[in-house]
Amino acid sequence: MKDPLQDLIQAYHELNAAVVEELWEEPSALEFMRYVAKNRPFVVRQAAIDWRAVERWDAGYLRKEMAGKEVNVAVTPLGNADAVVESPSGSKIFVEPFETSEPFDSFLDAVQASSSKGANDTSNARYAQTQNDNLRNEYSSLYRDVPADIPFARIALSQPAEAINLWLGNDRSVTSLHKDNYENIYVQIRGQKQFVLMPPIEMPCVNEQLLGKGRYATTSEKETQARSDEELIIERDANAEPVPVAIWDPDLPNQNPTPYSHLAQALRVTLQEGDLLYLPSLWYHKVSQSVGEEGFVCAVNYWYDMEFAGQHWVTSSLVRDVYWEEEMKVRYPDLDLDEEGSDEVD
Amino acid sequence: MKDPLQDLIQAYHELNAAVVEELWEEPSALEFMRYVAKNRPFVVRQAAIDWRAVERWDAGYLRKEMAGKEVNVAVTPLGNADAVVESPSGSKIFVEPFETSEPFDSFLDAVQASSSKGANDTSNARYAQTQNDNLRNEYSSLYRDVPADIPFARIALSQPAEAINLWLGNDRSVTSLHKDNYENIYVQIRGQKQFVLMPPIEMPCVNEQLLGKGRYATTSEKETQARSDEELIIERDANAEPVPVAIWDPDLPNQNPTPYSHLAQALRVTLQEGDLLYLPSLWYHKVSQSVGEEGFVCAVNYWYDMEFAGQHWVTSSLVRDVYWEEEMKVRYPDLDLDEEGSDEVD
Ligand SMILES: O=C(O)CCC(=O)C(=O)O
Ligand SMILES: O=C(O)CCC(=O)C(=O)O
Repeated sequence: MKDPLQDLIQAYHELNAAVVEELWEEPSALEFMRYVAKNRPFVVRQAAIDWRAVERWDAGYLRKEMAGKEVNVAVTPLGNADAVVESPSGSKIFVEPFETSEPFDSFLDAVQASSSKGANDTSNARYAQTQNDNLRNEYSSLYRDVPADIPFARIALSQPAEAINLWLGNDRSVTSLHKDNYENIYVQIRGQKQFVLMPPIEMPCVNEQLLGKGRYATTSEKETQARSDEELIIERDANAEPVPVAIWDPDLPNQNPTPYSHLAQALRVTLQEGDLLYLPSLWYHKVSQSVGEEGFVCAVNYWYDMEFAGQHWVTSSLVRDVYWEEEMKVRYPDLDLDEEGSDEVD
Repeated sequence: MKDPLQDLIQAYHELNAAVVEELWEEPSALEFMRYVAKNRPFVVRQAAIDWRAVERWDAGYLRKEMAGKEVNVAVTPLGNADAVVESPSGSKIFVEPFETSEPFDSFLDAVQASSSKGANDTSNARYAQTQNDNLRNEYSSLYRDVPADIPFARIALSQPAEAINLWLGNDRSVTSLHKDNYENIYVQIRGQKQFVLMPPIEMPCVNEQLLGKGRYATTSEKETQARSDEELIIERDANAEPVPVAIWDPDLPNQNPTPYSHLAQALRVTLQEGDLLYLPSLWYHKVSQSVGEEGFVCAVNYWYDMEFAGQHWVTSSLVRDVYWEEEMKVRYPDLDLDEEGSDEVD
């Protein structure tokens, strides 16, 4: 018997090399639209080399521009914001970071002081990673140092950026594998980022599970700012709907695989300062980082609403639905799933 | 139990209105690329109104330009080239036309003399419909009357047209529901065409069957030109591989439906003289026609190679594979299809 999902993944690889195309010049709007149509990523090396942000954003400049401002910070024990945590009993939970607001200055101090290279570093990891258009809000004094929008994307997609986000942290933070409903233009300002990318049709490889939700919290009742050395505990949210989370990690392929994981061909690309990545909508991505000269990593990204019309969105959902239908048969082989009224997956 | 194919078709309709978008100006290359990315059709009313072909192609002009030339003609009893024919016993076969070469002049005579309105017309239907770049070959003397290429498509797709075809016949010919691996720009010159269009994800609705192949042939051994009143017989090709053919007709929805056919929402559009249609790759289309003033129908189309990279092609194949997997279970419920070595569908 043929397996439609296996055939899909294999046919995709026959027609699409597992590499991120490398450009040395920005595409025109039309050229960009061809990548959007194909839903394929590319990197433009040194595209942002003349941005004021790339020229100016050292720690001193950032401290001056952000002087006196409070910023939102995600605090986690291990740099694991929005990630799966396994309890000693082996049950998995999707944990959001402790979110706090603190003066930019002391936030940057903590980021620069901590690093995965300091083996004894037991402090909490801090990451400014709110994806709520923060560069035009919290960090608006820095917004003038980047283009107001990305012309080729704005023209091609016929819309302004929906959100422009600043990401500031260090090499202890890793963003675990997930996908977004956005076309994403991601620009590296300081340090490096290692992206691991998987196309939407590789959904059967990522071992999506419905997990309960939790959130890191401080133990001291009144504390709203988690001190850097304070222990964070996980508070389960018993009322939250379970969320679908990828639990397979392309960097640890033998842990939590599905029968399809071995077919995955993840794409890998490292962004250097000034590089620009087009990360197409619905692609899975895992992001690790290395700090720059001054001990921090900084990037800016532009999110554009994706197109839900046409076939892209609905066929990506089909892959998921077919995978889940199969998965339910494996999990509940004795259930007559063709009967009305049986359990449904959604 | 959810049905992934039903959900796919319904989600598609929620996100895509079942109408052909109507423009009154040619799109730019970038605007066109947005339609290609969405794989959605549009019509540009009167886009070709200034083409020399639309201004000049009356019967007299065509006869003059084509004087002395032989052309390839598809001859069928009922205007059913490349169509399903049912034997009295109910078995279906996919029948190609009798193909002959004849002087353009007598071909056009026969086209103009015959019409579905003449109820007593028992002559064979004739249709110039070779899709082999005929406008730059057989009909090259007419090629100068149309643009050498369609600029917005050539620029957007970054390639010249792969084939430019002339279609010349009358209202007795109907092109039955099928799809092509091409991006298609279709321009009406004389008469009207009624297009019925279905998106690739509606594959589960069209009742694709693997049919044996045949071809119309003349009965008289030596005859190579089928006379207009001569009886054509079907010659089965016993050596040909069966071909997948859609046997559901959106105009006769109660005949040969699948469990999904009632979910189809076919799009309908009539092209008037000078109208241009973008017919996206892999869309099912059925085409009927009405003659112009002089009793013939004429159109020109430009075929561009489609993009096989990205997700469009492979996810369209997934829909087909999932449909066939289900279909095999319905047809052979007792077969253990999960065993290696069982029958395969391809
Ligand atoms: O930079 C990161 O840590 C993650 C980036 C990301 O997930 C995104 O841009 O969607
Ligand atoms: O005009 C016709 O009869 C059919 C056109 C067609 O099938 C095509 O352009 O692909």
